[in-house]
Amino acid sequence: MAFDRLIEAIAKLQNPTVAGLDPKLEYVPASIREKASARYGNTLEGAAAAILEFNRGIIDALAGVVPAVKPQCAYYEMYGWQGMKALAETISYAKAKGMFVIADGKRNDIGSTMQAYAAAWLGTTDVGGETPEAFGADALTVNGYLGADGILPLTELCKSRDRGIFVLAKTSNPSSDELQNQSFEGGETLYEAMGRFCEEWGAAVPGKYGYSGVGAVVGATWPAQLQELRGMLPHTFFLVPGYGAQGGGADDVAPAFDKNGLGAVINASRSILCAWKKQGASQEDYAACARREAERMRDEILKRVGEIRL
Amino acid sequence: MAFDRLIEAIAKLQNPTVAGLDPKLEYVPASIREKASARYGNTLEGAAAAILEFNRGIIDALAGVVPAVKPQCAYYEMYGWQGMKALAETISYAKAKGMFVIADGKRNDIGSTMQAYAAAWLGTTDVGGETPEAFGADALTVNGYLGADGILPLTELCKSRDRGIFVLAKTSNPSSDELQNQSFEGGETLYEAMGRFCEEWGAAVPGKYGYSGVGAVVGATWPAQLQELRGMLPHTFFLVPGYGAQGGGADDVAPAFDKNGLGAVINASRSILCAWKKQGASQEDYAACARREAERMRDEILKRVGEIRL
Repeated sequence: MAFDRLIEAIAKLQNPTVAGLDPKLEYVPASIREKASARYGNTLEGAAAAILEFNRGIIDALAGVVPAVKPQCAYYEMYGWQGMKALAETISYAKAKGMFVIADGKRNDIGSTMQAYAAAWLGTTDVGGETPEAFGADALTVNGYLGADGILPLTELCKSRDRGIFVLAKTSNPSSDELQNQSFEGGETLYEAMGRFCEEWGAAVPGKYGYSGVGAVVGATWPAQLQELRGMLPHTFFLVPGYGAQGGGADDVAPAFDKNGLGAVINASRSILCAWKKQGASQEDYAACARREAERMRDEILKRVGEIRL
Repeated sequence: MAFDRLIEAIAKLQNPTVAGLDPKLEYVPASIREKASARYGNTLEGAAAAILEFNRGIIDALAGVVPAVKPQCAYYEMYGWQGMKALAETISYAKAKGMFVIADGKRNDIGSTMQAYAAAWLGTTDVGGETPEAFGADALTVNGYLGADGILPLTELCKSRDRGIFVLAKTSNPSSDELQNQSFEGGETLYEAMGRFCEEWGAAVPGKYGYSGVGAVVGATWPAQLQELRGMLPHTFFLVPGYGAQGGGADDVAPAFDKNGLGAVINASRSILCAWKKQGASQEDYAACARREAERMRDEILKRVGEIRL
């Protein structure tokens, strides 16, 4: 099961974090942008070439330090199909470097359509008997608003192809409480109900370290809910965004972990991609700065969580 | 405002329907598939070339009959970036034929990321001072689970660039009741709350026919909820999936309309794309069959709804 692989990589590197690859063009150093612009002009193709080179630099710098990367699909779609090509190549490059890849697409739809999304991100596509992978990620973030029949096509692939999903439970953004914190009759909140569904859906995809193939997204910006959900959802692995630029710190994310230091992977995006700013370095040194920030983040979280034991 | 344009096109053609472009490869006639396979092999590129040609045939056949098309992103993502290129070309082709294009992506994320999705689907992307459109749709379906800050970047573009969004309220799938029908304390269901948010978010994007730029997705498979929401949400235009292959009929969708025959656009996908099957025709005649089915669907709904008046 895919999260077994992720957990083993986390333990091996003693690093329960994932680097978000949200490559806005302004994050990319001038030298890379200018090279792409000279070759392709100020076009979507040029932007895509620039972010791909930027990503390769980040991945090279983080390999051996960070076990996983999480490309955010929106930052590739905004560069059109050319950006989606850069996304496919980024995923392929990260996997070749031994990294676990979480495609952050928050996909959701009815069952028949989710079969297509499942094929796109976690499976293969049948073309006249050939079965290429469209994007070939290890895991995908999804939105469970449509209920079980939008999730089952994914859990089937989680089982058959060693993949995983993370379902949005309590998101990191300020207005996540507008709906997610509302209580149903009986007292359960919407985010708690979504968490409970993760446990139910995950029962079909058990993992050898106690965590199923159906994880949950719970924001670092809501430490009380993080602690509550960790207690409620013993088999649900957490993807925790919101560390760093969104305001979450090591104390905030500590409740996401179990007594062995397992149970969660903490994401940071901007604080890693733009680490050169905080370090007062040149933007051209973005990759080395990203590695230093990833090491600092790892050390800060490990100090709070302790040794990670399988 | 974009839905003014859609409403005017609906009234002009006296047809409140939209054709879903969900081009599974098995829907594509052998002649088209074989030509693409001979040129590109059984590859994602070949599949993408085949579905693009298939779509062009459908669009040519429906232009002048159906005011809008709704490509479902999943069926393009499953063919990789090559499929996304076919999607961009499909959108461009449909717009050139005068059709209103609803990208069915059900996108959702935190505010900063939704800016990127908004740029991708409804806006433009800044590349060194140039501002190309990545996908250039007229409207996008979205999921409101994250609350207002994931919606505001979209409503801003709806205002500034004459675009629209449809927020999932009550989806057409069987398990939509698992979460959406649950009642909050006070008695409001989740789908009703989402509908109420559509009215609130839409207030910033009013339209001249009474409907705002923030619409809602409400499935034809739930006629009672469709009727209830039509009454509750006087300014919210409905995108109604689930007609045809999913089981909804003209009686089921009638409550979606106001007394002028406005207020909703009814989607059918499989029943149009695969109309040749029901008509006992050759698959090679898929386009002519699709037009006949689109005309039949239009007539069936109009008979129930009456003349559409601006």
